[in-house]
Amino acid sequence: MNQPIAAVPLPKAYRLLNHGPTVLVSGRQGGTDNVMAAAWCCALDFSPPKLTVVLDKATKTRELIEHSGMFVIQVPTVAQAWMTNEVGSHSLREQPAKLARSGVELFAMEGFDLPFVAGCSAWLACKLIPEPHNQQTYDLFIGEVTAAWADTRVFSDGHWHFETADPALRSLHHIAGGHFYAIGDAVSGTAAKV
Amino acid sequence: MNQPIAAVPLPKAYRLLNHGPTVLVSGRQGGTDNVMAAAWCCALDFSPPKLTVVLDKATKTRELIEHSGMFVIQVPTVAQAWMTNEVGSHSLREQPAKLARSGVELFAMEGFDLPFVAGCSAWLACKLIPEPHNQQTYDLFIGEVTAAWADTRVFSDGHWHFETADPALRSLHHIAGGHFYAIGDAVSGTAAKV
Repeated sequence: MNQPIAAVPLPKAYRLLNHGPTVLVSGRQGGTDNVMAAAWCCALDFSPPKLTVVLDKATKTRELIEHSGMFVIQVPTVAQAWMTNEVGSHSLREQPAKLARSGVELFAMEGFDLPFVAGCSAWLACKLIPEPHNQQTYDLFIGEVTAAWADTRVFSDGHWHFETADPALRSLHHIAGGHFYAIGDAVSGTAAKV
Repeated sequence: MNQPIAAVPLPKAYRLLNHGPTVLVSGRQGGTDNVMAAAWCCALDFSPPKLTVVLDKATKTRELIEHSGMFVIQVPTVAQAWMTNEVGSHSLREQPAKLARSGVELFAMEGFDLPFVAGCSAWLACKLIPEPHNQQTYDLFIGEVTAAWADTRVFSDGHWHFETADPALRSLHHIAGGHFYAIGDAVSGTAAKV
């Protein structure tokens, strides 16, 4: 782990997800860590920041989160496309060595008993807001973001810098079957109408 | 309106949103049409396809949808960045001529009493699944997609073709304050680990 990481003020945390990246969801419970990929994760509120994430009943990560009430949402990069697809394609239930085989390196954040995935561009520590009806009916989980961080090479001062950062740090946007698009060029919506 | 539009089979409809684009939400009720922008829209299920969208209580579009129980989610393009920012920055409540001033052109789809925004790359007609607790507590709305279509220049045979289509047809991914990123290059997650 040799990344320049800085805290992101909570009122700016929604910006880490606002462009709709595919994320990694990680959880810890009873000595077990796991990481899965999720394309269906979305900001839900600004302050306090909240988010939604869809967690299928078959996933081990969901079980960990239901028990611990905590999880991390992190934004993987183009450099992590293979790993992201791997952790999204295999379950810890069938592949106990999943994390090692997928090349996942975990690290700790002081004060958080949660597994953070190294090499990502952003991390959001979340507390589950229990909503049993949503969880059972829709596999829909709501989290309140309690802390956030980003790799300062690509997100600083409340802004993404995809234009100037290493393209390997761009976010991934999954379509299907391991086929992603990276985030692309900046586009202004405030320039005069053409 | 002179776009090549084809129906998207419902089991593939989630792919229209899977990469996390900013969307336009439109609704119709009692002779009033409205369109707003929403960055917080996300797929929720494959089959039948469902989605979530966050609609602030201040928006007129939310009121239309609460009354009619129907709405359209559509994917705007780079060519529509200014319009997308405009309809996301003004309310019909304060600006009765909002749609005309924003350059929104609406069109009809046979069999649907809903306003569709011309020039987008994809459209999903939705039926509201009433969840009063989510709507009141989180501004979170759930829709079931009942039909979907795409501009065949950029989405056909169940796949986006951003690599080869006109860059003006790429999706928009809002960060904040009218600053978007376009979707970028294709990235494979199944290529051998490097």
